[in-house]
Amino acid sequence: MKLLRIGPAGHEDVGVLDRDGLVRDVSPYVDPHTPLTPDVLARLADLDLGQLPVLDTAGRRLGAPIPRPGAIVCVGLNYRDHAEETGQAVPTEPILFLKLPRTVVGPHDDVLVPRRSTQTDYEVELGAVIGTRAHYLPDADAGLACVAGYVVSHDVSEREFQLERGGQWDKGKNGETFNPIGPWFVTADEVGDPHDLDVRLWVNGDLRQRSSTRNLIFGVGELVRYISQFMVLEPGDVINTGTPGGVALGYPEPKPYLRPGDVVELEISGLGRQRQTVGAA
Amino acid sequence: MKLLRIGPAGHEDVGVLDRDGLVRDVSPYVDPHTPLTPDVLARLADLDLGQLPVLDTAGRRLGAPIPRPGAIVCVGLNYRDHAEETGQAVPTEPILFLKLPRTVVGPHDDVLVPRRSTQTDYEVELGAVIGTRAHYLPDADAGLACVAGYVVSHDVSEREFQLERGGQWDKGKNGETFNPIGPWFVTADEVGDPHDLDVRLWVNGDLRQRSSTRNLIFGVGELVRYISQFMVLEPGDVINTGTPGGVALGYPEPKPYLRPGDVVELEISGLGRQRQTVGAA
Repeated sequence: MKLLRIGPAGHEDVGVLDRDGLVRDVSPYVDPHTPLTPDVLARLADLDLGQLPVLDTAGRRLGAPIPRPGAIVCVGLNYRDHAEETGQAVPTEPILFLKLPRTVVGPHDDVLVPRRSTQTDYEVELGAVIGTRAHYLPDADAGLACVAGYVVSHDVSEREFQLERGGQWDKGKNGETFNPIGPWFVTADEVGDPHDLDVRLWVNGDLRQRSSTRNLIFGVGELVRYISQFMVLEPGDVINTGTPGGVALGYPEPKPYLRPGDVVELEISGLGRQRQTVGAA
Repeated sequence: MKLLRIGPAGHEDVGVLDRDGLVRDVSPYVDPHTPLTPDVLARLADLDLGQLPVLDTAGRRLGAPIPRPGAIVCVGLNYRDHAEETGQAVPTEPILFLKLPRTVVGPHDDVLVPRRSTQTDYEVELGAVIGTRAHYLPDADAGLACVAGYVVSHDVSEREFQLERGGQWDKGKNGETFNPIGPWFVTADEVGDPHDLDVRLWVNGDLRQRSSTRNLIFGVGELVRYISQFMVLEPGDVINTGTPGGVALGYPEPKPYLRPGDVVELEISGLGRQRQTVGAA
């Protein structure tokens, strides 16, 4: 099942893509503030989509399918080529940092370069969405069982703020509009193996990142197990699983950081495609 | 004005302390999910407290006065003696990290040592609560004007998770129960100068931290201004402004980390006193 939200920010309708590519209105069946737990997803899966009204999508804004997660837990340097391009050691256990839920915007909303920023960077990532509370899980299988589904997640980053302004990465990860999510939330059963998905990102049509989730150092289930040792994960949380090589930071000077007017596109196989125009805050 | 919440977790009544030390029930006048903006506080200040029912406090649990902030932004090494005891440089600009809102518990709730933790540590901090949205503020005065009031905040920390497990502090700052807040939220007008408050913490009656907010390297208004350059601050957010020297990490071996059965007490002048028993997760 593929879920999406359509409409002005904060007032989106909830839709499910049917077999014919039509978006069926399931808004009456899902409270926008309720996370997509297994119960909620089972209720949606039982609906007879053919009986539901078709949502008109033409020219309408797509919202993030997970509009306000309770937490966004991010994993650093989880692809070997990305660790190497940043000049840092390949981690022996996951590096974690946090993004504020308020950084989430829709998959086609503008991304804003912060004031006084010269190093705004892009990062395409597989986002895993938690469906079941996770705390002190015993193994990676238990971790994977807590994942409700997946999204394309853009972990926008400001490298000077992140790396040169006092030691903790959060400072460069939390600008407004810094986490486009979507276009769809895709349930885990429909994604199949989350460790065999193509991951790509373009800037102005130029392919900058190209990898596969096969190359994740720590897989999704292991990440959920690991994070659950340090904090409680709740339904609706998003885990940004890390980005592959090819970010602007990894280029020789002059590094191709994002500038207003740039167009960024991101795609993960089965999870859809994002497209953002870069603006200025 | 001093606000507090009384009752079982998630079902607290909201009270205001009157001049006689009685807690008056203002629950009908404040939505528990609405942050304490200037409007909300003005409405509460206009109430004739003497006409309102007295809440019975005997034997009842105190909840956090800010139960689920939208964000908890923490400042690291913001007292010189604490930077020195941890062996780190005194920062030239604020160090920022994040705690998840779900770490918040009441001021007298148990603090749980995480599983496999041997270095759970205490940190008493002045918490500043945002009342007005803050983004790209021009100066510290504008920052201070966005603060609705103050709380005692306990920034519980696991030092091995924070410092020895992969590079970003968030990993050691987000255990369940890791942010007791309260007993009261005190409005800024009643606190007076937030940079002249005594700050103390005891473990089992032994005074471990003793300082004053006079010793903050970066003051409250400057912190709000600074943070607003990197992210949007919203009403209800809490800024943990940093802890003075005296934490267990700063002691010679064997460092006196928290163990189940310990009792931690925290006090800031005018903001009240917390008392937690340490348990095991």
